Amino acid sequence: MKASERPIGVFDSGLGGLTVFRELRAQLPGENLIYFGDTARVPYGTKSAEAVIAFSREITGFLLEKKIKLLVVACNTASSLALDEIRKVSPVPVLGVILPGVEAALAAAPAGGRILVTGTSATVNSRAYSKALAAAGARVRVLEKACPLFVPLVEEGWCSKAVAADVAREYLAPFRKKKIDALILGCTHYPLLKKIIAKVMGPRTRIVDSAHAAAASARAELAGRRLLNPGRRGRCEFIVSDAPERFSALAFRLLGIRTGKVAVKRF
Amino acid sequence: MKASERPIGVFDSGLGGLTVFRELRAQLPGENLIYFGDTARVPYGTKSAEAVIAFSREITGFLLEKKIKLLVVACNTASSLALDEIRKVSPVPVLGVILPGVEAALAAAPAGGRILVTGTSATVNSRAYSKALAAAGARVRVLEKACPLFVPLVEEGWCSKAVAADVAREYLAPFRKKKIDALILGCTHYPLLKKIIAKVMGPRTRIVDSAHAAAASARAELAGRRLLNPGRRGRCEFIVSDAPERFSALAFRLLGIRTGKVAVKRF
Repeated sequence: MKASERPIGVFDSGLGGLTVFRELRAQLPGENLIYFGDTARVPYGTKSAEAVIAFSREITGFLLEKKIKLLVVACNTASSLALDEIRKVSPVPVLGVILPGVEAALAAAPAGGRILVTGTSATVNSRAYSKALAAAGARVRVLEKACPLFVPLVEEGWCSKAVAADVAREYLAPFRKKKIDALILGCTHYPLLKKIIAKVMGPRTRIVDSAHAAAASARAELAGRRLLNPGRRGRCEFIVSDAPERFSALAFRLLGIRTGKVAVKRF
Repeated sequence: MKASERPIGVFDSGLGGLTVFRELRAQLPGENLIYFGDTARVPYGTKSAEAVIAFSREITGFLLEKKIKLLVVACNTASSLALDEIRKVSPVPVLGVILPGVEAALAAAPAGGRILVTGTSATVNSRAYSKALAAAGARVRVLEKACPLFVPLVEEGWCSKAVAADVAREYLAPFRKKKIDALILGCTHYPLLKKIIAKVMGPRTRIVDSAHAAAASARAELAGRRLLNPGRRGRCEFIVSDAPERFSALAFRLLGIRTGKVAVKRF
């Protein structure tokens, strides 16, 4: 197999990373993709760094056996807590979703502006976005807000119900008057609540979807290494650690993705 | 150690089972208790029967090493899916939360009456309550409703916020006009939402807390085997598979339980 034909591996704690998968598919239609969702241990957002690192290393080892040419860590929590550890064990390049999200947010926020980072408790507690914004030399004020109910709301398929707006207001209404220039959707599930979040925040705030930014970053990485697959339509493979039928049903219901048969790998 | 002095083992997918722990403590103050919360893999409610059985067997083996005299499976999902498998590997008696909840519901619903079972998706899909009600020869109509957002609402500490009432109405309002005699709180987290649920359902419906019923059942089981510990105040030990500080903080915030130091056992 030519190096460029090797697949891109993508992993997430569950199905949220399919928002990244969808963007990869749209921006890199020729690539072969392998998606792994750790549905036996989802969610990562309330777990310790130690646990998230251990899970991420196991999954990385598994995907490396599949001869991937690039690993995309689609999960914000794993990107926040485990990226350095994953890079230590991976001979192929590893991309997270934090840095692409940060770059997109900086494009939307002027110097002296304000960025609000939303995510799971683990992502927010890790302060990964704040650190990455500081490391990028950004002269912005960063606020952070954990929104733990957003993931189960999305997985319940309630994205357009009134109660989703109630929950979004509960979390975000206090930030509306704080003149936020950009809000980072710092969890792969959150793009599915983008409209509701945008409504709570008002027209002043640009909503930054890191799934889109991460796929653009994957494209640039592969182009730089001359590893882009020029094929017309790549193959997609889906593997989960538990409950493949539920994954497949939700992938279709929430994102319109037809997975076909989903394989199971238990750890 | 005398047989009666051996501890009771209690396990749950996370911290919801502390509602059962609290009842055991109240009804059996002399008993030594060991509580295990599988916080690395919580929640069980969206996982497959196969996964829940594998996790339950691992935890049972671990608690048996602690020389327990009785095992209380405080998790409704594990009680629904794994009780038979746990009994196969346990030389000590094993109690779940389903049967005690069923008996308490039948005491509240007349023949020809209606019982609504609420729980996680896994519990509801297993139809464990319906089957147990049928096996008890109950002449009642059983309705079931999965309420997956209740667990994260409780864990967010939002039990008395307006948004919790919104979510409860979204799930349960359609049942109010169906003349429900008893509603079973078929998940250990749900007793913390009891007031809100009672308000949505109205005064006609008796809310059945299976934590209370399960503790009464444990007392009867030990008494029947002459294994009650007549001591004045038993010792309590807490062990989790991840994030002990978060467990400890939530145990206090949600239930007022002071855990002291929480140990960690990873699988």
